[in-house]
Amino acid sequence: MADLTPLLAFRWSPRAFHPTATLTAAEAASLLEAARWAPSAGNSQPWRFALGHRDDETHKRVLVNLPADERRWARHAAALLLGAHLTGEGAGARPAHAAAGDRRPEHAGREAYDLGQAVAHLTVQATALGLYVRQLASFDRAGLAADLELPAGIRPLVVVAVGRLGDPFSLPEELRHRETGLRRRRPVTELLLR
Amino acid sequence: MADLTPLLAFRWSPRAFHPTATLTAAEAASLLEAARWAPSAGNSQPWRFALGHRDDETHKRVLVNLPADERRWARHAAALLLGAHLTGEGAGARPAHAAAGDRRPEHAGREAYDLGQAVAHLTVQATALGLYVRQLASFDRAGLAADLELPAGIRPLVVVAVGRLGDPFSLPEELRHRETGLRRRRPVTELLLR
Repeated sequence: MADLTPLLAFRWSPRAFHPTATLTAAEAASLLEAARWAPSAGNSQPWRFALGHRDDETHKRVLVNLPADERRWARHAAALLLGAHLTGEGAGARPAHAAAGDRRPEHAGREAYDLGQAVAHLTVQATALGLYVRQLASFDRAGLAADLELPAGIRPLVVVAVGRLGDPFSLPEELRHRETGLRRRRPVTELLLR
Repeated sequence: MADLTPLLAFRWSPRAFHPTATLTAAEAASLLEAARWAPSAGNSQPWRFALGHRDDETHKRVLVNLPADERRWARHAAALLLGAHLTGEGAGARPAHAAAGDRRPEHAGREAYDLGQAVAHLTVQATALGLYVRQLASFDRAGLAADLELPAGIRPLVVVAVGRLGDPFSLPEELRHRETGLRRRRPVTELLLR
């Protein structure tokens, strides 16, 4: 395995979050700042976020739209962040330079790609702060858009759980088993087209 | 501005690449390793890459499919990396768990999102190695897919230029002007939905 910078090498996605630890205002600001400075196509910055802290209204509304299995661990996360992106269908929110191009098929996925970069930057910053992140791709998108009263042209794509590491033995047994498994990835040779 | 870890705070996207510096094999391996360990939905790892070093065949084929304006600086990059993702339409290459879900509208953009994470991880690692990255979202996708003989079900989304920093005064004047401008982003308040 090639050498990686510690902020990448030691990152992993836990389910056991510390059930009482909270994010400070400075930590939350730092996470959003990291996302904010990510690069994007034409500097369009198509990412949008909703940040809920444990027990606040946003956290509750995000949590209730997660699958029951995921709620069992995600409810302990200090913060649940919705990651969303512009779709090109909203009025007013798009930068002018991007308005014409974004429904062309070759640009499909570009906003989602840039949101992925922003959340990755946020995750690196979380690691630098001693925080852990686990992302959820499957949740009730329509329910969450309604419960958070998202405006048109904003598409929820990911829920990002953030917090301090908790005790894996606090997890239900079947989740604990996955928590302690080895991280696996395809070999690099399978990723290379040429 | 909230504090950021140096690997994020000092990242920027230059056009002036050193015209003779090359990537070592260890550096190239390290960049791909960073991408490889990014998180993805259900660990599907939908990212694929083609890596060209300056003057090799892949570098040439990527370069020729860039807009003329971008070729003026991108030709100096030590490496040009194509970032592509699975589309769910290819046979065999998809993980079984994702096969059924990926044409559902709520999953649209998920592979692009994960590719964005992988390229962001690669960019953080590049920064850790003293390398710089500039991404290009606009290029001849169909031409590049043909020239690189990409298989069906692989969608090229981004070209990533990587190299050492060059002399900005080597750039044509209108590019140099942009090179030395301040980086700008929307304030965090504009990114928050609630």
